[in-house]
Amino acid sequence: MDHLAEMLQTHPHPASSAGDEANACIEAAAECAHVCTVCADACLAEGDVSALAQCIRLNLDCADICALASRLIARPSRRDEPTLEAMLQACARICRACAEECDEHAEHMEHCRVCAESCRACADACDRMAAALVP
Amino acid sequence: MDHLAEMLQTHPHPASSAGDEANACIEAAAECAHVCTVCADACLAEGDVSALAQCIRLNLDCADICALASRLIARPSRRDEPTLEAMLQACARICRACAEECDEHAEHMEHCRVCAESCRACADACDRMAAALVP
Amino acid sequence: MDHLAEMLQTHPHPASSAGDEANACIEAAAECAHVCTVCADACLAEGDVSALAQCIRLNLDCADICALASRLIARPSRRDEPTLEAMLQACARICRACAEECDEHAEHMEHCRVCAESCRACADACDRMAAALVP
Amino acid sequence: MDHLAEMLQTHPHPASSAGDEANACIEAAAECAHVCTVCADACLAEGDVSALAQCIRLNLDCADICALASRLIARPSRRDEPTLEAMLQACARICRACAEECDEHAEHMEHCRVCAESCRACADACDRMAAALVP
Repeated sequence: MDHLAEMLQTHPHPASSAGDEANACIEAAAECAHVCTVCADACLAEGDVSALAQCIRLNLDCADICALASRLIARPSRRDEPTLEAMLQACARICRACAEECDEHAEHMEHCRVCAESCRACADACDRMAAALVP
Repeated sequence: MDHLAEMLQTHPHPASSAGDEANACIEAAAECAHVCTVCADACLAEGDVSALAQCIRLNLDCADICALASRLIARPSRRDEPTLEAMLQACARICRACAEECDEHAEHMEHCRVCAESCRACADACDRMAAALVP
Repeated sequence: MDHLAEMLQTHPHPASSAGDEANACIEAAAECAHVCTVCADACLAEGDVSALAQCIRLNLDCADICALASRLIARPSRRDEPTLEAMLQACARICRACAEECDEHAEHMEHCRVCAESCRACADACDRMAAALVP
Repeated sequence: MDHLAEMLQTHPHPASSAGDEANACIEAAAECAHVCTVCADACLAEGDVSALAQCIRLNLDCADICALASRLIARPSRRDEPTLEAMLQACARICRACAEECDEHAEHMEHCRVCAESCRACADACDRMAAALVP
């Protein structure tokens, strides 16, 4: 996302002290949203879908929540911070739940192994963003 | 949403004790998501947009968060409940923040008056849904 | 969506001749988005998920496209009409594809039968909305 | 999006001949979705919002359509190709409309100048993806 950092810097009300964390968290959450979407689609295309139903289930929630988190952070002006904190908490939580489920299949499914990595990176980025919000 | 209750009832793993609350919360959040989208568009089409910038700002977050909340509740099977609780909390919070801001403009802007009503109805539905999740 | 018609009527730049069609299309698309989300979740919770993989696959695209269509229509001011036409075409198309796939399972899966009905109602509402846009 | 290419390669039903174009289009559309979201938020935080109302208006549609396009491409298995073609057409169209409007403000608003670049890059990526779908 070459243009993103430039966008955040030219914003008239920048996200103050959390600028670097915001940029990193948008990138991690946008990646995780798409990685989970690919993982759900890949699981649906495997031979034994029933064994992967829980993984698909969590991938879907994780993709939706990450997509919303990255979008909310991309609106740095005049936001309601307690709402953003609750969203970052929800996002870190579902990312870790999805990573744990993907771990179960990682040995046999390369897409689950990569997805777990992306989920953990996003959870950590959400934690850092939340910490940067604290006054 | 005439087909929605029927869908939730034919689900093989229904949302147990929270079935009625789930149906009501999906309807309230889906309505609020669209009402906030119309309100932001209406504010943008008014004469003095600067006076409505904070209202548009909250409408956008509220529309996105309500849209996600209604979708997550529409997936009753094997969900991660702490994630859903954090999402319902975020949704109720942004709905009340948006309603308060809309109240400021309700005397002169009919769309803000109606939007505040829809936001409060959604916040209450989220609270009832969250209470129904408690074991 | 009791507040929706009121919102569309109080918009300062209403959607002119397409007001009734817009209201009906938002309601049909919002319903279909949620019905397809429930159907995918219900299919994932059935015993033989592999037999339903194509149904889940189309449900996911249909839910996302319907959710976007209803949102775009909820912004009646100064829109780019060729973009909206292409979106309504995409929405009607995926709704009919999803309905056909759900028909295959409707005899044994009540949620697929209901979902096919909601998809067809949405496809028809998109066609009527697109026709109302023609100058 | 370091993990994305790896995910697309480990998918059991890869997007055949359009693999490189899919990866590039997801990245361009995901970037554009976030850049347009920042641009709308930045415009709302400027002094004279009324002068930027049309820009905000198109940014919102462009952000939503790009977010959906990137997600649909991230599901390479068993998709309905005419639906994807209509979506890519809608996405390229709104990106070019948004870029033209941003150009009007680019001299005075750095965020509009950067946004126009990201929109044009996404429109081109959608065109290349659509061309790669042709049998």
